[in-house]
Amino acid sequence: MTIPGPAPTLLVLDAEPRPRLGRLTGRARIEYADESTLAGRLPYADVLLVWDFTSHAVRSAWPGDGPRPGWVHTASAGVDHLMCPELAASDTVVTNARGIFDEPIAEYVAALVLAMAKDLPRTLEFQRERAWRHRESQRVAGGRAVVVGSGPIGRAIVRVLKALGITTALVGRTPRTGVHGPDDLDRLLARADWVVAAAPLTEDTRGMFDARRFGVMQPSARFINIGRGQLVVEEALAEALDKRWISGAALDVFESEPLAAGSPLWQVPGLIVSPHMSGDTIGWRDELGAQFVELYERWLAGSPLTNVVDKQRGYVPGH
Amino acid sequence: MTIPGPAPTLLVLDAEPRPRLGRLTGRARIEYADESTLAGRLPYADVLLVWDFTSHAVRSAWPGDGPRPGWVHTASAGVDHLMCPELAASDTVVTNARGIFDEPIAEYVAALVLAMAKDLPRTLEFQRERAWRHRESQRVAGGRAVVVGSGPIGRAIVRVLKALGITTALVGRTPRTGVHGPDDLDRLLARADWVVAAAPLTEDTRGMFDARRFGVMQPSARFINIGRGQLVVEEALAEALDKRWISGAALDVFESEPLAAGSPLWQVPGLIVSPHMSGDTIGWRDELGAQFVELYERWLAGSPLTNVVDKQRGYVPGH
Repeated sequence: MTIPGPAPTLLVLDAEPRPRLGRLTGRARIEYADESTLAGRLPYADVLLVWDFTSHAVRSAWPGDGPRPGWVHTASAGVDHLMCPELAASDTVVTNARGIFDEPIAEYVAALVLAMAKDLPRTLEFQRERAWRHRESQRVAGGRAVVVGSGPIGRAIVRVLKALGITTALVGRTPRTGVHGPDDLDRLLARADWVVAAAPLTEDTRGMFDARRFGVMQPSARFINIGRGQLVVEEALAEALDKRWISGAALDVFESEPLAAGSPLWQVPGLIVSPHMSGDTIGWRDELGAQFVELYERWLAGSPLTNVVDKQRGYVPGH
Repeated sequence: MTIPGPAPTLLVLDAEPRPRLGRLTGRARIEYADESTLAGRLPYADVLLVWDFTSHAVRSAWPGDGPRPGWVHTASAGVDHLMCPELAASDTVVTNARGIFDEPIAEYVAALVLAMAKDLPRTLEFQRERAWRHRESQRVAGGRAVVVGSGPIGRAIVRVLKALGITTALVGRTPRTGVHGPDDLDRLLARADWVVAAAPLTEDTRGMFDARRFGVMQPSARFINIGRGQLVVEEALAEALDKRWISGAALDVFESEPLAAGSPLWQVPGLIVSPHMSGDTIGWRDELGAQFVELYERWLAGSPLTNVVDKQRGYVPGH
């Protein structure tokens, strides 16, 4: 199909490796920008692909009321790194990578839950010391988990934890069938063996895991964050682990990434630190690229876009 | 209920912590033996409880055709540590701890599979080095596993791997519905992402994972042994890992346990070493004791025992 007039301008906020956009040949004029050139190029772009999803440059570069892309897609589940009041107030449509990370992240959470229950980090320590130290480990079946964040990632986590025999409760912004509202959170935390943060970062969720909430949890509880670093007050978590308010934690995301070599978090006892990789399974970048190409083809054909973010809420509203 | 005559003599091959046998008060005269006193006591015992399931003393102490217990129970799934030709030929009944370890071991295998897929051991290494090293990890869903050993442990492993979306094949001694026979093994190994050894140790299975079988596996395959150490030719596994014939392995059991501090296995690249703990979740000893008490009560009442081992085959025949 040929389209009338020149092909739309697709601006890519660049990162290596670049997306495979060969399928759009002749249907998009593809330009690349980095953080320093983004502001100058945005007014001339029809579409912005935020391929460098670690960048916050869109916020400062967004042209306000001036000429701007009608559509912004980010190759990430979270949109907190690009949302700003001007973008939220505009008629520009924002879409995200909803769906790509759900199952991989759920598997990653299952890996952390099982590794902690089976005391695998200490097994590896003893192996380095050539020490045969038999211990009793925990069952996961029969335990209770609270998953905070009722989007597709949280729901995928619930599915895999249930498959392991864990009783799960899902907490979202709005109570509905199968989803608890925020009012139930503290009561659920007080009974949970596993607490998983999988919420989008919004003004409602920022810092929600603070000293008070870690204090509500059981001493045997373990906390996992695969959402956004700013959901957690990191100092409060470190203190909760140090004081044994809870018995373990794993963070895949941090207030500041990459985590600085000098951060005390690397060495908090009982804390597993991983480098924001929970959703990134082999082939993930190609999947992100293919998802964008599919959305672009819908957009070009005038079909309604999927994965449209509610810019006020900061995520794609679901069921 | 009182029984006529004196209570039967229950001899316990002792280990700490001792079994809780309080429920048998008045219904058994309980005596304890260690490896050095076992032979002298066996002729006077009606029942032998092999509570120290790490001991091989029963083999050498078994009284042959002389007076001997009519029933031997071992607090383990495997019976290889106590079977000897004289015991096999006798009319003494042997029972095992079938059922106690199934689900715990299955969870442990799931923990190893997920930890290897998600590269967790290297994540913990990088954490020690305070190094932020993003990697792409693997999906487990969609992969293929071969579980060798079609008893309740192997079947529990299949259930949990299936729940994680892995396609599984079960291999047993005799082909039947849902179980492949030994003739299919090499063909299945050649396609497997995960190979799990969960077979009893018998003359058929000893050394079955040798250089030839590791050579059949895919370079991306990972091998897990939670059965018995002697299922594996350890030098062949170390060499297969060293030459990258396969990409990883985890051993929870060894030819000689505890694994000596000087064993080269502690440091084989890509090998996770754990101290025979896969089935030992909190409360496991109490479950083993309660299981024996229940069997003892059946035996005392003249009811048929469950968990009866086929002494020629070396395991409890199943479905």
